[in-house]
Amino acid sequence: MTAPPKLPSVAQLRVLYADTDQMGVVNNVIYLRWLEIGRAEWLRQRGQPYKQLEKLGYLLPVVEAHLRYREPARYDDVVDVAGAPTEVRAASVKFEYQLRRAADGVLLCEGWTTHACLSPDGKVRRFPPELTSLFQADPR
Amino acid sequence: MTAPPKLPSVAQLRVLYADTDQMGVVNNVIYLRWLEIGRAEWLRQRGQPYKQLEKLGYLLPVVEAHLRYREPARYDDVVDVAGAPTEVRAASVKFEYQLRRAADGVLLCEGWTTHACLSPDGKVRRFPPELTSLFQADPR
Amino acid sequence: MTAPPKLPSVAQLRVLYADTDQMGVVNNVIYLRWLEIGRAEWLRQRGQPYKQLEKLGYLLPVVEAHLRYREPARYDDVVDVAGAPTEVRAASVKFEYQLRRAADGVLLCEGWTTHACLSPDGKVRRFPPELTSLFQADPR
Amino acid sequence: MTAPPKLPSVAQLRVLYADTDQMGVVNNVIYLRWLEIGRAEWLRQRGQPYKQLEKLGYLLPVVEAHLRYREPARYDDVVDVAGAPTEVRAASVKFEYQLRRAADGVLLCEGWTTHACLSPDGKVRRFPPELTSLFQADPR
Repeated sequence: MTAPPKLPSVAQLRVLYADTDQMGVVNNVIYLRWLEIGRAEWLRQRGQPYKQLEKLGYLLPVVEAHLRYREPARYDDVVDVAGAPTEVRAASVKFEYQLRRAADGVLLCEGWTTHACLSPDGKVRRFPPELTSLFQADPR
Repeated sequence: MTAPPKLPSVAQLRVLYADTDQMGVVNNVIYLRWLEIGRAEWLRQRGQPYKQLEKLGYLLPVVEAHLRYREPARYDDVVDVAGAPTEVRAASVKFEYQLRRAADGVLLCEGWTTHACLSPDGKVRRFPPELTSLFQADPR
Repeated sequence: MTAPPKLPSVAQLRVLYADTDQMGVVNNVIYLRWLEIGRAEWLRQRGQPYKQLEKLGYLLPVVEAHLRYREPARYDDVVDVAGAPTEVRAASVKFEYQLRRAADGVLLCEGWTTHACLSPDGKVRRFPPELTSLFQADPR
Repeated sequence: MTAPPKLPSVAQLRVLYADTDQMGVVNNVIYLRWLEIGRAEWLRQRGQPYKQLEKLGYLLPVVEAHLRYREPARYDDVVDVAGAPTEVRAASVKFEYQLRRAADGVLLCEGWTTHACLSPDGKVRRFPPELTSLFQADPR
């Protein structure tokens, strides 16, 4: 399997003991937390923290998620988290992610999520032009 | 250390792989989830599910928690969860818990939590008489 | 989007307060725990608990996971968990899952995972015939 | 209630959306993860990462934990994590913790954990002199 083009890292984290399971590696459920870090830090670095988006009335719940676990992450590993939007539509956006072991750059896991854009009352809401532009800022 | 008097079980759960850590036992952070099950099921069995309490305007956030881990819980163990209120004051209540391995009754963990009674806007709120009575229903 | 054919439920769970997030619904990271329950209970009901598979030297780590969140699950909801193997190869197996609100059968989330078959030392290991047969037991 | 003497911060973390619950604040179960960060980073900063302790044959499982939640932590808050050993015995050690909102230093939660010292086969093991000295390094 060929490695995908490298996304730029937006955050680093360190694996907790609580993240491991009795197989001696990070349990599969933990990685979705790391994807959240990836998209949150991408947004923060573009000046639009997700917290602010919610205040403006744009909620972005996850509607689909995909994870491809390639190599196990282990206790105390430092992990580089890369996340970036790769597709934006009228009222949805897709983020892609790569999680790499910081020590050697090995790809541990890659994945993507899609998000609906909702108003606080749960109705589908179109992105305003400035958000559409924001999500198109990093063409791959 | 002498074992405490046995509390009646209110629920059973089964240990997930995701609950274990690389020591091969359930990680310490998981048990607070199990305490929630203990108090929720005690309330449900007395006809006052916590969900209903919140609808009535009584929120019971945890203000203090204590856990004494006695024996490790392991993957796929069935655990008996016991929880019951043991002290009620004007605007707070204490729950005590015991987690036992169902197979042999061995006490895995015991603990307690205290809860404030708040209104939805976050102000301290006295329990109404019927809730005080409810929490006094099971004297130890 | 048409609903997929219904898989038989293998377990029920109840949503914890700890499973929710500030959007007032179950957070997306929780569902991968529920998929584990789906495959574990399917295996248990066929007489081959995963714990026993590990003792026999067959480890089944998740190598890929997919989740499609359709409707939000909420605090205290009872959820029917369906999981079943749908493809088996020489050294891998795919499970599919459906999570439905027990009260009305509404599909909350569907997903799938693929699993490698490894020996305890981490090498790819072919399923023995009896496991291949087991995983083929429920043709869709 | 008087505030305890301030412990020096050893790490910072940022609250995830996945850490919150439908009360709009961080759920109580999350804080035990943060205590792990506190003791792990204290050890790392003294040149003895916990990972290395385990390699040397010293396991330090949590045997007791206590949490006092003072103020709610909220989504996207930056939290200063302080942890330090405060009592060391022949084969056990106690850590104390403080979690403060970085923005204003407000104490969100304080707690402590006690840890047994075990060998890899699960037997109680005395600390060697260098570990006893390490844990006594920061008298309060």
